[in-house]
Amino acid sequence: MPHALAYGSNSATTPLVPLTITRRDPGPTDVRIDIVYCGVCHSDLHTARGEWGGVKFPAIPGHEIVGKVIAVGDKVAKFKVGDTVGVGCMVDSCRECASCREGLEQYCEAGNIGTYNAPDKHLGGHTFGGYTSEIVVDQDFVLSISDKLPLDAAAPLLCAGITLWSPLVHWGAGPGKKVGIVGLGGLGHMGVKLARALGAEVVMFTTSPGKVADAEKLGAHEAVVSTDKAAMARHRKSFDLIINTVSAPHDLDIFMALLKRDGAQVLVGAPASPHAPINAGRMIGNRLTLAASTIGGIRETQEMLDFCAAHGIVSEIEMIDIQSINEAYDRMVKGDVKYRFVIDMASLKNGAKAA
Amino acid sequence: MPHALAYGSNSATTPLVPLTITRRDPGPTDVRIDIVYCGVCHSDLHTARGEWGGVKFPAIPGHEIVGKVIAVGDKVAKFKVGDTVGVGCMVDSCRECASCREGLEQYCEAGNIGTYNAPDKHLGGHTFGGYTSEIVVDQDFVLSISDKLPLDAAAPLLCAGITLWSPLVHWGAGPGKKVGIVGLGGLGHMGVKLARALGAEVVMFTTSPGKVADAEKLGAHEAVVSTDKAAMARHRKSFDLIINTVSAPHDLDIFMALLKRDGAQVLVGAPASPHAPINAGRMIGNRLTLAASTIGGIRETQEMLDFCAAHGIVSEIEMIDIQSINEAYDRMVKGDVKYRFVIDMASLKNGAKAA
Repeated sequence: MPHALAYGSNSATTPLVPLTITRRDPGPTDVRIDIVYCGVCHSDLHTARGEWGGVKFPAIPGHEIVGKVIAVGDKVAKFKVGDTVGVGCMVDSCRECASCREGLEQYCEAGNIGTYNAPDKHLGGHTFGGYTSEIVVDQDFVLSISDKLPLDAAAPLLCAGITLWSPLVHWGAGPGKKVGIVGLGGLGHMGVKLARALGAEVVMFTTSPGKVADAEKLGAHEAVVSTDKAAMARHRKSFDLIINTVSAPHDLDIFMALLKRDGAQVLVGAPASPHAPINAGRMIGNRLTLAASTIGGIRETQEMLDFCAAHGIVSEIEMIDIQSINEAYDRMVKGDVKYRFVIDMASLKNGAKAA
Repeated sequence: MPHALAYGSNSATTPLVPLTITRRDPGPTDVRIDIVYCGVCHSDLHTARGEWGGVKFPAIPGHEIVGKVIAVGDKVAKFKVGDTVGVGCMVDSCRECASCREGLEQYCEAGNIGTYNAPDKHLGGHTFGGYTSEIVVDQDFVLSISDKLPLDAAAPLLCAGITLWSPLVHWGAGPGKKVGIVGLGGLGHMGVKLARALGAEVVMFTTSPGKVADAEKLGAHEAVVSTDKAAMARHRKSFDLIINTVSAPHDLDIFMALLKRDGAQVLVGAPASPHAPINAGRMIGNRLTLAASTIGGIRETQEMLDFCAAHGIVSEIEMIDIQSINEAYDRMVKGDVKYRFVIDMASLKNGAKAA
């Protein structure tokens, strides 16, 4: 079985270091992928640092994977050697439950198999993510990436992109709809771009006055500092949909107040401790919805990638070498990234040190 | 202008007593109604006792009104003298906003005009409800009641019935859907009957083991004591829709855990203080919705009344004379009513004392 270079943490309290792992030999339906770039998600950090329960070590994160096909199994019909492909947050699911049959593998009733830190049914142990030189994935969980997209900036579409795309489409963002995006980070900036391209009127909400100009540059029709009560009041009862990307516990009511009748606020970040209690009376008065959503199914991820190729949408990124990953995590904790780190995986192979 | 007999409270701390009020002369589009029965809603109690902000006195409650048309204005086309009619929680709305134009007057953007304790544009002051011998209402806010329905037990359909009907229909209760109703009171018992008649599988949730047999008698396929963790666990992730009628603050999460992917818990009772914070992580994992809803529009109220006539659905009631209203309120506070008090308004006119 092929060995692969990797970067991961051996415990919750030690930094990520170079490791060597084993990848399985491709089975009949497997695709072997040389990883070219891998985006850096907050989940990577929480996992590598053992901040979520049940993390298994060594923890090798990475689920915004893009690269080239270097081998395919006998029965692989969807991909061939040389294809440009991606892998997101899942590498398998039960494929039999109602959610899987509907193409919503992210809600697999048996639990989807995460790209990292999930049970590995092929080799035993747990799955290793994209901070590695290569990965072997069943063709049904591999996405096709158009050559129209710059590959480095496309990587974050596999998690940040689909996490916003799925609720935007599910809750009907489009022409004639007013859509809010709360929080201008890796998720939020994709939300602004996607909602705008879908034809909605887009308002960005941030607590940082310094992000207002950026939000408008990214495509928001307007950016509102959410602590500005007068500005918030001007948008009262006017939104069809608000996607809230902020995972720190906060007051959701100030955004519920901005929804019109039948409007929905959708949470895509899970807080470590609960948000403040919601005001049920306000919700009753306008038949409001508070909902939540995670990533997207394989079919809709492909639709999102194709939409992005057609509309020229990618993430705003800062490229790093793998050797800088620990510093990058420290900067992410401080919110010091516009808006997604992407690892140049060549650095893993040639041992480069970040400039 | 005609005088009318009434029962109401002169302050938050004094009981309801006999009063005399003035009703307007019917205008061209008005219907004058002799009130035969009036249901007793918890909102009546909260208003009469000044437990909600902004109550104006004298407070004359009652918004589950049924009776006979005794006069109509020149331009009334929908009703004629002798018709059996009802009036629910609203007597007017702006008629111009998006909600009104869609027949959802309960969400009128200018605020619908409540049957009691709302500004009275005709006489000044505030509106008086159904604890009165007669009422004058614009024809657009009067409902037609089939002679197939027993009139006394039909009265609670005007508030309790529509409050459950509207979310059941809006969120798709019907054949193939599993629907939960939380709380077996005036609202909940209508929910069980309506959801069953709509063709759903119906499970009743109560904290009172003594209500299990009743729930099944009312039409629930099953009744579950919500403090029984094993029973709750058997229903995990199986519901499409749960309508929660309990307004006391409680833990909504135990019901969120019972929803399948894309399921919704809909609150129809507004708590005086907030419910416990919800678990956003659980909602994210199954794209769950927490929503809320109030009564229904005039069109859907008529649809509900017609459905009830076709399916023989009415409220379970205990008839009282108006002179017993204060004792009835005390019993409601203790939950001692199966399941709705209805006032025989003849008692107001003939001064009867309850047996």
